[in-house]
Amino acid sequence: MYEDLDQLVPIKKRLRIYSGTSNPKLAADIAKILGVEVDGLVLEQFANGEIYARFDETVRGCDVFFVQSIVGKNVNDLMMETLIVADAAHRASARSVTAVIPHYAYARQDRKAGPREPITARLVANLLETAGVDRVITLDLHQGQIEGFFDVPVNHLTALPLFGEYFKSKNFDWENTVVVSPDVGRAKACKKLSDMLGCDLAIAHKGRPHHNQAEVMGIIGDIKGKTCIINDDMIDTAGTLCAAIRELKAMGAGDIHVCATHGIFSGPAVERLNDAPIEECVVTDSVPQPEENLTGKINTISVANEIAECIYHVFTETSVSGMVGGRFNL
Amino acid sequence: MYEDLDQLVPIKKRLRIYSGTSNPKLAADIAKILGVEVDGLVLEQFANGEIYARFDETVRGCDVFFVQSIVGKNVNDLMMETLIVADAAHRASARSVTAVIPHYAYARQDRKAGPREPITARLVANLLETAGVDRVITLDLHQGQIEGFFDVPVNHLTALPLFGEYFKSKNFDWENTVVVSPDVGRAKACKKLSDMLGCDLAIAHKGRPHHNQAEVMGIIGDIKGKTCIINDDMIDTAGTLCAAIRELKAMGAGDIHVCATHGIFSGPAVERLNDAPIEECVVTDSVPQPEENLTGKINTISVANEIAECIYHVFTETSVSGMVGGRFNL
Amino acid sequence: MYEDLDQLVPIKKRLRIYSGTSNPKLAADIAKILGVEVDGLVLEQFANGEIYARFDETVRGCDVFFVQSIVGKNVNDLMMETLIVADAAHRASARSVTAVIPHYAYARQDRKAGPREPITARLVANLLETAGVDRVITLDLHQGQIEGFFDVPVNHLTALPLFGEYFKSKNFDWENTVVVSPDVGRAKACKKLSDMLGCDLAIAHKGRPHHNQAEVMGIIGDIKGKTCIINDDMIDTAGTLCAAIRELKAMGAGDIHVCATHGIFSGPAVERLNDAPIEECVVTDSVPQPEENLTGKINTISVANEIAECIYHVFTETSVSGMVGGRFNL
Amino acid sequence: MYEDLDQLVPIKKRLRIYSGTSNPKLAADIAKILGVEVDGLVLEQFANGEIYARFDETVRGCDVFFVQSIVGKNVNDLMMETLIVADAAHRASARSVTAVIPHYAYARQDRKAGPREPITARLVANLLETAGVDRVITLDLHQGQIEGFFDVPVNHLTALPLFGEYFKSKNFDWENTVVVSPDVGRAKACKKLSDMLGCDLAIAHKGRPHHNQAEVMGIIGDIKGKTCIINDDMIDTAGTLCAAIRELKAMGAGDIHVCATHGIFSGPAVERLNDAPIEECVVTDSVPQPEENLTGKINTISVANEIAECIYHVFTETSVSGMVGGRFNL
Amino acid sequence: MYEDLDQLVPIKKRLRIYSGTSNPKLAADIAKILGVEVDGLVLEQFANGEIYARFDETVRGCDVFFVQSIVGKNVNDLMMETLIVADAAHRASARSVTAVIPHYAYARQDRKAGPREPITARLVANLLETAGVDRVITLDLHQGQIEGFFDVPVNHLTALPLFGEYFKSKNFDWENTVVVSPDVGRAKACKKLSDMLGCDLAIAHKGRPHHNQAEVMGIIGDIKGKTCIINDDMIDTAGTLCAAIRELKAMGAGDIHVCATHGIFSGPAVERLNDAPIEECVVTDSVPQPEENLTGKINTISVANEIAECIYHVFTETSVSGMVGGRFNL
Amino acid sequence: MYEDLDQLVPIKKRLRIYSGTSNPKLAADIAKILGVEVDGLVLEQFANGEIYARFDETVRGCDVFFVQSIVGKNVNDLMMETLIVADAAHRASARSVTAVIPHYAYARQDRKAGPREPITARLVANLLETAGVDRVITLDLHQGQIEGFFDVPVNHLTALPLFGEYFKSKNFDWENTVVVSPDVGRAKACKKLSDMLGCDLAIAHKGRPHHNQAEVMGIIGDIKGKTCIINDDMIDTAGTLCAAIRELKAMGAGDIHVCATHGIFSGPAVERLNDAPIEECVVTDSVPQPEENLTGKINTISVANEIAECIYHVFTETSVSGMVGGRFNL
Repeated sequence: MYEDLDQLVPIKKRLRIYSGTSNPKLAADIAKILGVEVDGLVLEQFANGEIYARFDETVRGCDVFFVQSIVGKNVNDLMMETLIVADAAHRASARSVTAVIPHYAYARQDRKAGPREPITARLVANLLETAGVDRVITLDLHQGQIEGFFDVPVNHLTALPLFGEYFKSKNFDWENTVVVSPDVGRAKACKKLSDMLGCDLAIAHKGRPHHNQAEVMGIIGDIKGKTCIINDDMIDTAGTLCAAIRELKAMGAGDIHVCATHGIFSGPAVERLNDAPIEECVVTDSVPQPEENLTGKINTISVANEIAECIYHVFTETSVSGMVGGRFNL
Repeated sequence: MYEDLDQLVPIKKRLRIYSGTSNPKLAADIAKILGVEVDGLVLEQFANGEIYARFDETVRGCDVFFVQSIVGKNVNDLMMETLIVADAAHRASARSVTAVIPHYAYARQDRKAGPREPITARLVANLLETAGVDRVITLDLHQGQIEGFFDVPVNHLTALPLFGEYFKSKNFDWENTVVVSPDVGRAKACKKLSDMLGCDLAIAHKGRPHHNQAEVMGIIGDIKGKTCIINDDMIDTAGTLCAAIRELKAMGAGDIHVCATHGIFSGPAVERLNDAPIEECVVTDSVPQPEENLTGKINTISVANEIAECIYHVFTETSVSGMVGGRFNL
Repeated sequence: MYEDLDQLVPIKKRLRIYSGTSNPKLAADIAKILGVEVDGLVLEQFANGEIYARFDETVRGCDVFFVQSIVGKNVNDLMMETLIVADAAHRASARSVTAVIPHYAYARQDRKAGPREPITARLVANLLETAGVDRVITLDLHQGQIEGFFDVPVNHLTALPLFGEYFKSKNFDWENTVVVSPDVGRAKACKKLSDMLGCDLAIAHKGRPHHNQAEVMGIIGDIKGKTCIINDDMIDTAGTLCAAIRELKAMGAGDIHVCATHGIFSGPAVERLNDAPIEECVVTDSVPQPEENLTGKINTISVANEIAECIYHVFTETSVSGMVGGRFNL
Repeated sequence: MYEDLDQLVPIKKRLRIYSGTSNPKLAADIAKILGVEVDGLVLEQFANGEIYARFDETVRGCDVFFVQSIVGKNVNDLMMETLIVADAAHRASARSVTAVIPHYAYARQDRKAGPREPITARLVANLLETAGVDRVITLDLHQGQIEGFFDVPVNHLTALPLFGEYFKSKNFDWENTVVVSPDVGRAKACKKLSDMLGCDLAIAHKGRPHHNQAEVMGIIGDIKGKTCIINDDMIDTAGTLCAAIRELKAMGAGDIHVCATHGIFSGPAVERLNDAPIEECVVTDSVPQPEENLTGKINTISVANEIAECIYHVFTETSVSGMVGGRFNL
Repeated sequence: MYEDLDQLVPIKKRLRIYSGTSNPKLAADIAKILGVEVDGLVLEQFANGEIYARFDETVRGCDVFFVQSIVGKNVNDLMMETLIVADAAHRASARSVTAVIPHYAYARQDRKAGPREPITARLVANLLETAGVDRVITLDLHQGQIEGFFDVPVNHLTALPLFGEYFKSKNFDWENTVVVSPDVGRAKACKKLSDMLGCDLAIAHKGRPHHNQAEVMGIIGDIKGKTCIINDDMIDTAGTLCAAIRELKAMGAGDIHVCATHGIFSGPAVERLNDAPIEECVVTDSVPQPEENLTGKINTISVANEIAECIYHVFTETSVSGMVGGRFNL
Repeated sequence: MYEDLDQLVPIKKRLRIYSGTSNPKLAADIAKILGVEVDGLVLEQFANGEIYARFDETVRGCDVFFVQSIVGKNVNDLMMETLIVADAAHRASARSVTAVIPHYAYARQDRKAGPREPITARLVANLLETAGVDRVITLDLHQGQIEGFFDVPVNHLTALPLFGEYFKSKNFDWENTVVVSPDVGRAKACKKLSDMLGCDLAIAHKGRPHHNQAEVMGIIGDIKGKTCIINDDMIDTAGTLCAAIRELKAMGAGDIHVCATHGIFSGPAVERLNDAPIEECVVTDSVPQPEENLTGKINTISVANEIAECIYHVFTETSVSGMVGGRFNL
């Protein structure tokens, strides 16, 4: 009655790209690069706040890639949406479920900074695995160690080479340019960027010019009269950042450029940046930006190519490490 | 140097009640009944939407009871808050973590109603266990089977006896009173309430008076001229409920009283209920109500006593089944 | 020496149908529909009651479907047989192990109806997963929530459409026919059947005609002079059912037809049904019936087609939801 | 309202002994030795073969010891009963659940003797752990390695010292007595018994007196004219054993005594033993014996003392290794 | 931009053989038989003793077979190396990770021989599974039960048939040849070897010639004037073995040949064997031997063919049980 | 026969301190501070390299603290020893097993620095949990994020305050003293130390004085003529460190003091440090030092007090955060 089943049958698989509600533009760009469509997925939030998900068509035997930046005022809604979609895909017999999370939530809560605190970045990893996620693709985690919070494989991409290319094309006077790390914790990544650009490094820190004086921002390294490129993994409220920018200026810094992978821009961040004495602030599209954010000093570069390439290699089971702009650990 | 450690030392434990942000009034009432304080727990939501938690004092060796109704527009925030607090308590060496969840989120998504759907009520159970929850105390789950979604022990309480007592004290004419189930799925619980009250049962359903006609609400059982008590587990937008009420009236129902354990009251629910031809709508304080909700036909009865008693028995390891107004399965 | 191994080799898979000892006829029917053989599996019970299993030929890389109704006096033997076969298949490197369980044991113990009871339906789910079962195909679970007791995917089929077709072909006078739910818990499924047939619904319940009187069976809805179709998920001892049938007759019911997915027929069930004032009792072959059971009023319809189709879709990784008589949630 | 809860409260625990349906006499003997009662536990098997369990009184915070020999024609019923009781105890918040299993089922299926076989003794260990068992107390496992199938602690007791004492009191002529191992696999344990008794060892095996001849039973060691004590872990159908006994006699053996920990006695075992040329067959009460089994050559010695002592040490958290007749590995 | 991804794509896989540091010769032999290369894997031990691993090329989607005998003075280094390589392969998205462990460490610690001991052979199984091992191929475990310590599939091979063939080709006078088991625990395997060779069996044991005398080695079975073949699973320090050899000689044994699967040869073992009154000592290459070990009485036979064949069947998903010199349980 | 068991019995516990083979002096110091003995634990390494463990006396119901620095040439032996002891304690029914690991192995392999690498620090966490470790006490992890690799609670102590006190007592001229971070990754911890001491911070890094020149060590911050205190988490071969020291001197640094928590001192480290232009090198006793290491510039301060205090609080379930020299996150 049915076609011949008692034979050896080759196993086939299909690529399926789905988008969460956070960043449909990025998902669409990724799909377009891959030459496929974003597939149909019903996502609703009921009046009572609960989220409902259902795939339009069968995902049986498919490799599901769910693109979702978990970020913003409704970060916890997006988290639950991700977990619920993973559960649905798993129960619908997807071959594998990859959470493509350009911005990973709670990344800064990656250790106990005080007693009786959670380690929420680890909790998030556990939740994703519990919900049925088989792999994670993500970008510029606050610390590379977060990759070790997972038992499932993680592809940890970075936007640093994109920023490197971006600034290189500006043809600054590199001998008079310095990459400035906004704090000691970011020094290592800024060192990488300064190496790409072939320029110096300076590190801002809360310090004391002399013993027993009040704490102020200090700077180790030379910035006087130099073009400064500040790099961070994320910009949230931009309060500390803009205060530091003003102090750099007061110390005699030249033009200041800011770049960060994740432009979260909570509260007054956009206003603050537009008011700050900077030339520009470049972020990626890991976090979607409303049109009005992009009318002033803020502009974006896209990570769609990088993510698409990673998905391509994962799906075709070819090496990710060989990809252009490929994996890069901090 | 230290007191004698090499001896047999009795293990002691402490009761700690903490409140999430959803229902501090209920947590305080529970603590008061138990003669203790709600203990200090920092809970903040940052500008970027992420939640932060930290216990004020040591929870080492303590039995932590975290009271949190997971409900409302920010239901997913409250879910994450619960998971994060559990993680913090577990890492801080609490002896046990009990999630006291008067309203359990996603309870209606307890099975696959269509293909490629999640079973979110099970997912929620898995998430809670993953985060370190050792026990759950909850109230009037949409289906008793949800208790089986957990591997950890669950205390499943019910408000039905409270509604039974409430209406008994009204001294209705019980021969002319009928408990009305709003649909066939709720018939079993309504049967229990009608047995408590010693009155009849009727069941509303979507039906067809005659073959090939359009579907309308039908009613099986006699309601004409009778006082009707409608009972449900929750009232959300109240749309279907209020339509049913009007149909009951059109069919000749007498006074109508509505009761439900969980007054979620999404969207226009409160307005709808105040406009409906009912005498009153009684809900419990499992969901906190803003003052303005309680100025019309809605009023509340408290489940604080019942939950406090359950916590007492769990902490002292005495029988929960023997408690007044105790466990009662649907 | 060996064929070229250092190349990309397509992964192939094979379908293997095995039968437990409970229902070899159904397994054979399923295999025949699929155009394959039931494969060889040694199953013995030693004199000491222990079960022994061994696959005749390699199952390495195969998709194993093990057909076993877990039901009857030796229900626990069949349970252990299922677990042991799953363990053997897993250790023998089967690609996947699907337990095809037309009748799922302990389905009625799906919640705690009283204190200090187990939730055995969840326990059974845990045992199956522990033994290495990767997927379950089952039929008309007592409650759809049992699907949520599993972390692995479940295909939950229903025989309701088969009963719908069966009765439709009888060309009853549908305006004078009513589907009767034997209790309020079954009302929802009976509503679906009545919708399929385009006839009315009535619900039996233990009730009191008047306050303070003894409890007797009541009926909500109109059955007088009507042809009644009683539907349930299973018939066990048939005691309550036959009592209800007599009461329906006493209330003036017309011809009575009984249908249920699972004909367990414990103890005097067959005798009771043959003696009852019914026209017939239709069950599926989810539970195998000895010849002598089928000489009176009981007859069966087969679910082999439905299960075979589901296996086909699972093996070929095509959509189950699109199948004829497909998935249908209660 | 309640006693002062906000203080350090000592944790207390209670001992609870429950009996499964397999061996209530042994459970009662154990409880009596411990000076306690066998506590109330409802255990029913429904007409459909399913088992139901419910504890009569609260087990919250108690250390539950469930005594159940898993053996006999209904071995799988007893297995499920054990799993269900463990589930109920776990969900009812017992502090710990100890399965006291004097005879462990499927112990001989402890490795793959052929391809595509299960390892059922490991499966049983996994099932017990899945159901919530926290510890196992058992007796003379077929192989000591089975202890390693568990992740939870196991107390593995032995009846060998009891047999040692039993035969010592007989004052045999030890220079003319030999312990006979029925096969090479049992040689190690028989060596221990012969050491206890200070007598020689002989080992029966299937062998060939000369090359190219048919296989017959051979014996290595000297038995001619000697009193023989055959020891095994269990006697099942006694077929091989009785054949060996006759061959021993044919080879000139003197009086033959048989002892084994577990008297399973399937099929014609009792008749065979009574007909065999032996003086007696001694087994323990790990398997309950019907009265009629004990009228001929079979008699029993009790392991109740040993198990009671082990429970005592486990409950009071004192050393098991120090107990009289204590732990003894094969 | 990319090739057509939205289609059904066949899943392909690749065979990858890697070698640990313990036995590169055996790994190379296996690869050669399979017609492939040993692939590139960086393995370093830093000055601080920590091990570092990195695969040279992508293992994404590959079936990784890691050949590592875990044995010798640095047995724990080799254990960690195995665990670390498994972790790396798993995180690098290998399709499967098979640990090919010709000599399994800690195999003799397979049960608790005394109180408060670990069961290290089970611990090792748990560690391998935790690190991401999906399957184990191993050889002549100390006890077959160790296979049950794993939840993942195990291929348990044996070298006994190789020894059988080896000695058969010697054309001994089989009526005057006897296989001697060095203790009762090894009797079962030696019985198999004697059956292959069609000769007698004898068993050495610590015994007492007469009651109350000091314990000396005894022998059950006839060895006088016969050629003796001693077989064991492993030879460690060879102390007990060489003492037994001398006693056999004293009892009148003829030529003595020794064979064992695993030639661990700790401490003075090689010297002892060369000094012992034996004709030869044959071991397999499961443990690598330095050149100087092989200049005297010790020589080796290779298990490379057997392991290669097993890998071939596992990779191509064909039956292992059918292989020449295939699976053989002790 | 036994004391009254059917009553509520208080649960008691005992403190047990055991020492691994790596650092018995530290274990003894800790025990002495706590006023207890290091308890008896047999630890042997057989000739074949395998480790054997057995507790001398019962650990049933005890809180076991196993003190073991996992470090040095035999780091993997010490790792296995720790895992084996945890397994033994767990199987012997210890109430809890705390691994006290002053130096945590593989801490620098905490993320994937290149493709196809393991994350061994996470693997180690998984192995410890698998073996039965319930809690970890450790010191100055390479990154605080490693705490998040565990699901069990971790007490992460730091020696920084000890170094703070140590140098404070030296009464340096703090205005002319600078803490020097040896690389940007350590900047954050050095910032803490400089804050404690009230002095400046400088950061060494591999940099380029001018574009297109070869990479040399650079320094950001002012060190000319100043007393330098270099701090790191560990000193391994001291190669990079001593090169940096010489460059600092070449740049005009004053006296140089070196401090690090873990003095691993692989290879020529001790010689290098004694030869380097430093005043001293201070490490803790987290790694045991042979006498001859301490005759030159190296000396140690003890962390025994800190660890003992932490054990005290854990055992008595009082707050660790309140301890003198308490928890301090990097």
